[in-house]
Amino acid sequence: MEVDEVVCLPRLPRVAVCGGTHGNELSGVYLMRELLKMEKKETEKEEEPLSVLMVLSNPRAMLQCRRYVDTDLNRCFTHATLNGPISDAAPYEIIRSRELNAMLGPKGSPVAVDLVCDLHNTTANMGLCLIAYSDCDWICLHIFRHLQRQMPDIPMRYIHFDVSNKESYSLDSVGKHGFAMEIGPQPHGVVRSNIYTAMKVGVQNMLDWVRFFNSGTIFEGGFVDVFSMIKHIDYPRDGETRNITAAIHPQLQDRDFCQLHPEDPLFQTFSGETLRYKGNEPLYPFFINECAYYEKGIALSLARKRRVMIPAIRVQTEQEKQANKQEYPSEEEE
Amino acid sequence: MEVDEVVCLPRLPRVAVCGGTHGNELSGVYLMRELLKMEKKETEKEEEPLSVLMVLSNPRAMLQCRRYVDTDLNRCFTHATLNGPISDAAPYEIIRSRELNAMLGPKGSPVAVDLVCDLHNTTANMGLCLIAYSDCDWICLHIFRHLQRQMPDIPMRYIHFDVSNKESYSLDSVGKHGFAMEIGPQPHGVVRSNIYTAMKVGVQNMLDWVRFFNSGTIFEGGFVDVFSMIKHIDYPRDGETRNITAAIHPQLQDRDFCQLHPEDPLFQTFSGETLRYKGNEPLYPFFINECAYYEKGIALSLARKRRVMIPAIRVQTEQEKQANKQEYPSEEEE
Repeated sequence: MEVDEVVCLPRLPRVAVCGGTHGNELSGVYLMRELLKMEKKETEKEEEPLSVLMVLSNPRAMLQCRRYVDTDLNRCFTHATLNGPISDAAPYEIIRSRELNAMLGPKGSPVAVDLVCDLHNTTANMGLCLIAYSDCDWICLHIFRHLQRQMPDIPMRYIHFDVSNKESYSLDSVGKHGFAMEIGPQPHGVVRSNIYTAMKVGVQNMLDWVRFFNSGTIFEGGFVDVFSMIKHIDYPRDGETRNITAAIHPQLQDRDFCQLHPEDPLFQTFSGETLRYKGNEPLYPFFINECAYYEKGIALSLARKRRVMIPAIRVQTEQEKQANKQEYPSEEEE
Repeated sequence: MEVDEVVCLPRLPRVAVCGGTHGNELSGVYLMRELLKMEKKETEKEEEPLSVLMVLSNPRAMLQCRRYVDTDLNRCFTHATLNGPISDAAPYEIIRSRELNAMLGPKGSPVAVDLVCDLHNTTANMGLCLIAYSDCDWICLHIFRHLQRQMPDIPMRYIHFDVSNKESYSLDSVGKHGFAMEIGPQPHGVVRSNIYTAMKVGVQNMLDWVRFFNSGTIFEGGFVDVFSMIKHIDYPRDGETRNITAAIHPQLQDRDFCQLHPEDPLFQTFSGETLRYKGNEPLYPFFINECAYYEKGIALSLARKRRVMIPAIRVQTEQEKQANKQEYPSEEEE
């Protein structure tokens, strides 16, 4: 690929914005309610070429202000779970994940929505993160760079989970492109104005970018820092009860994305002892002390930072699209 | 009362420290587990004259990492609820409140423990607060002053809820003296080292004070700032759905105990509008954006600050106790 080359990508006519995938992550819940209210008021407005689908993903969990009712919805979107056998007694979220897959997918198919932006909050001091399964999805990476430029006051990172499309488990994996927009710190069950506003502005800028892209804007290439998840670290636990025996060390707490070096303090036990990081490579911690991950055995995650070059992109013209179709006919037309 | 007069008060031979009254307020849960572990190890130690009862108040809620299972345990300790009729199908916390009342009370009786310290966390930026139903309980106020002096780095306040003993509803009301030790900010379901350590040191200092008191130390009189709760303010809500339509204003968030003046910003609606404080008296806000109070209709509480003079105190001698008994025979001996 030449640095000057402009990559042409298909239009993004259908975008889904989802909130309440975790029912107690309230910025997304209240933002979606607000956007749905505004949408109602704007019905008289002339039809715009971009279709934005607003989704409240887990209404039952929202009603109870819990992460989930039976099982974590945002782990239900693997190919295996979506396509396996199902009984009448299936957990609520298994049933709901199929409804969402029917609405926004089917995952991996040519009729899936073009982009899924799934809204999340974390108790970790992570600022605004886009979390995606690809480090070469130019759409996601360009959106990230646009948000960074439009919101210079908000600390912003791009996190990459290296999982295949088949094994990717979260709602955003149902779209042709997709990411979670994760913002913190905010306690679950609480909405903080500053976090809510950052999410609102983030979603507006994301939709603006898609409109610019669809209408032919050329976005120049450049570099993006990508944090690739390497491993999770669990809390020290009691051998018998499995209760945790230490908390995140006060010197590490709230220092997401500050490099962690070998022998840096990691945990402070409940009796006051310091436990240190025993890895031999400095890495970047994130999701430090995320509430929902106690049960998943994750005290923090560690990432390696890489600089990724992204090409200039623009939308395909109608001609290019037709030429492309002849060259690579898509499934639906075979 | 003369300023120089030393008030003599009965010994405090039995103290209860309770954690997990709300199962997702984790500093208290892990501190109690730690103290119970230490207690086990120390059984060989010589018997000390102070009996400290360690209580995990709501084990079922703790297991589920929720505030409560059926109903808020810390609202179940009114005389009416403790003594009303009860069926087999009673909510778990109603049953549990009677067990705790049997263990630590009965509330209002001469056999109740001398002091209950009930450990709580809040998502509000409240530092360490003692919350009590009296502004003239010299024991509670002296403990508060001792903690203030021993922990000068921790912002500390004494909050007074003006409710009669009969109508007081929380676990700490079961003891002859009692208070909640409330520390924040900490998200529910999360333990933060700094908050855990503040609670641990607070409990140690509280127990130290009781030992000093019991062994005859005279504590000098002085002044204490008391924040008396005046009223609660609810979130603006949608008339139909009762969903909240605004969050705490970013200029108010985290500013617990900073005076709120008429026309100061109070809320920011989800569409971006600022709503202002319409009271006509400057007051002190606290419990700003406490997670558990969304369902109780409390966005923040407001207090008036007063300076209360507390007398010097010391423990009654055995002679004084005997003399006192003849003058005011207690119920059990009638």
